[in-house]
Amino acid sequence: MKSRAAVAFEVNKPLEIVEIDVEGPRAGEVLVQITHTGVCHTDAFTLSGEDPEGIFPSVLGHEGAGIVVEVGEGVTGLSVGDRVIPLYTAECRQCKFCTSGKTNLCQAVRATQGKGLMPDGTTRFSYQGKPLYHYMGTSTFSEYTVVPEISLAKIDANAPLEKVCLLGCGVTTGIGAVHNTAKVQPGDTVAVFGLGGIGLAVVMGAKEAGASRIIGVDLNPEKFELAQKLGATDVVNPKDHSQPIQEVLVEMTDGGVDYSFECIGNVEVMRSALECCHKGWGESVIIGVAGAGQEISTRPFQLVTGRVWRGSAFGGVRGRTELPGMVEKAMSGKLDLDPFITHTLPLERINEAFDLMHAGESIRTVIHF
Amino acid sequence: MKSRAAVAFEVNKPLEIVEIDVEGPRAGEVLVQITHTGVCHTDAFTLSGEDPEGIFPSVLGHEGAGIVVEVGEGVTGLSVGDRVIPLYTAECRQCKFCTSGKTNLCQAVRATQGKGLMPDGTTRFSYQGKPLYHYMGTSTFSEYTVVPEISLAKIDANAPLEKVCLLGCGVTTGIGAVHNTAKVQPGDTVAVFGLGGIGLAVVMGAKEAGASRIIGVDLNPEKFELAQKLGATDVVNPKDHSQPIQEVLVEMTDGGVDYSFECIGNVEVMRSALECCHKGWGESVIIGVAGAGQEISTRPFQLVTGRVWRGSAFGGVRGRTELPGMVEKAMSGKLDLDPFITHTLPLERINEAFDLMHAGESIRTVIHF
Repeated sequence: MKSRAAVAFEVNKPLEIVEIDVEGPRAGEVLVQITHTGVCHTDAFTLSGEDPEGIFPSVLGHEGAGIVVEVGEGVTGLSVGDRVIPLYTAECRQCKFCTSGKTNLCQAVRATQGKGLMPDGTTRFSYQGKPLYHYMGTSTFSEYTVVPEISLAKIDANAPLEKVCLLGCGVTTGIGAVHNTAKVQPGDTVAVFGLGGIGLAVVMGAKEAGASRIIGVDLNPEKFELAQKLGATDVVNPKDHSQPIQEVLVEMTDGGVDYSFECIGNVEVMRSALECCHKGWGESVIIGVAGAGQEISTRPFQLVTGRVWRGSAFGGVRGRTELPGMVEKAMSGKLDLDPFITHTLPLERINEAFDLMHAGESIRTVIHF
Repeated sequence: MKSRAAVAFEVNKPLEIVEIDVEGPRAGEVLVQITHTGVCHTDAFTLSGEDPEGIFPSVLGHEGAGIVVEVGEGVTGLSVGDRVIPLYTAECRQCKFCTSGKTNLCQAVRATQGKGLMPDGTTRFSYQGKPLYHYMGTSTFSEYTVVPEISLAKIDANAPLEKVCLLGCGVTTGIGAVHNTAKVQPGDTVAVFGLGGIGLAVVMGAKEAGASRIIGVDLNPEKFELAQKLGATDVVNPKDHSQPIQEVLVEMTDGGVDYSFECIGNVEVMRSALECCHKGWGESVIIGVAGAGQEISTRPFQLVTGRVWRGSAFGGVRGRTELPGMVEKAMSGKLDLDPFITHTLPLERINEAFDLMHAGESIRTVIHF
């Protein structure tokens, strides 16, 4: 079938809105009509060429929501008309990772997904007869996309797709990192580095967890108002201080924070986030994705004296199991997605969404098809 | 009073056995007659000049045991004749750290201890009228030493001091890191980098915890026999492999180990120890002390994909609370300290203990006075 899509033909070039060809779903696969998709920094990161797994030409997008149009052979858990959120972290419930109970990092389709292919090693997308690669197993920048059944969370039949698409990445990642990875408890102190969509979701999650102090850190003071509205008790701009930011935070908190979150992907900030943690017990969670080949470093003494360095992918959330509940929270008003949606644009203007993001003017732009 | 002591007058020179002057205990302090002390790599590390906190001239030694000779004003928990183990990690039970319940890193005397001084900012040691510095708050290379009350674990009145002195550092550190820091569970897989005293204690602790596989790693194959005797199921010499050792271990364990321990102090090995951990949940514990200014590094992807990097000091053990129980285990035979004691020497021959250690010929030499 034909599908309108924003295609990344080349590194660092604007996406082109074209009509591509989408093959029907094969065994274990599902054809989804994407109604809405967010535009996330990771899409921009891959488009920039920094992502070591980036492959072109491809259909980017990984923060979407849609409706099942057709199911392939053997698909039993989904039916035509179901509302779904595509998952870049699948949940097969059978692999060593899923059955460990210790991680959400299902590896069932990881190898092919990393190569821009479906699990059978082929692609469902083409343009003018030439193959286009998939992206993160989701490719939500196409109106019609094909996704493995295990990479789809079935959500409420009345879910507002124009909002809950954000649960496909940023909001879930931030909130999940607080609850699943760090396990923030009432009274804990928290620092959040980077107040974009993920950082704001961390702020929201920390407030929900009962943190006594939530310190937002960003170089862009325009991010502060929303962060404070969502729960930040303090905001700090490193530009306002001559000392390293970790020293500023250690002083502010009489020894350091209980938990810190890096939501940028900057390896220097990752170090600051670790070193602003309290001696003896502070834990830092890396959420941001760093450029290819970049490394984090610190003196091992930071760890020997009790700090812990960990990371989080998709907030430690097992998508098929946990996203339906998060959608319910959004529908009942317990989880407010509105503050994240600063812009809404049609697919044709998707490149403007990248511009807004780079300019620091948007939290999330939701694209509708 | 006069005391025989092995004094470190200068960086990188042999210790000199001389008669020093030791002042009596002031308020909150205790005069201890050290009967036995181990010689640990950390003593050698400081003597080498690599330790940023190293101060000379000083009385080294931090793995000892002895008998209370005199107590200062206000000391209520110890009496003359009590058997004790000096603690380089105090336990005041009152500071923010002690009362947190999250760490053993009591900070009550940390600042002065790091400067080679007693809590009141002075020293009790002198030689020919000139002050000598304390070391790690313990200075067990002197027959008589002065230690804060909060830095002494009172142990069983019949404890064999010639053995339990090793609980003052190495053995406790290794066993504690397994139980308190990593919390190894039955069936877990473990890699131990460096099979000296601490590494062997990790092996012993991992066996006690019911680990299904305990992989010892060392460049010196002469360490393997004892490691296997204590519980190592596999031993690996990185020299026997052309691949990086982390890749070897990942292959051996179908994806990586659940827990790894770095017991050397080598920042490159610390990286290998992290990267040999299983994606999704593997945790690496840094125990070794790296040289001044040295840094650990890795790609943040290692953490984002679920590995955890932490450290351990004195095995997370609160000395006054937990050492008495460990001494009881040693006395009842549940904890066998004999394998660690490869050599015994009188104080006069303490420099030979350093030579044996550097040559990789000893696990621990116990010095008697």
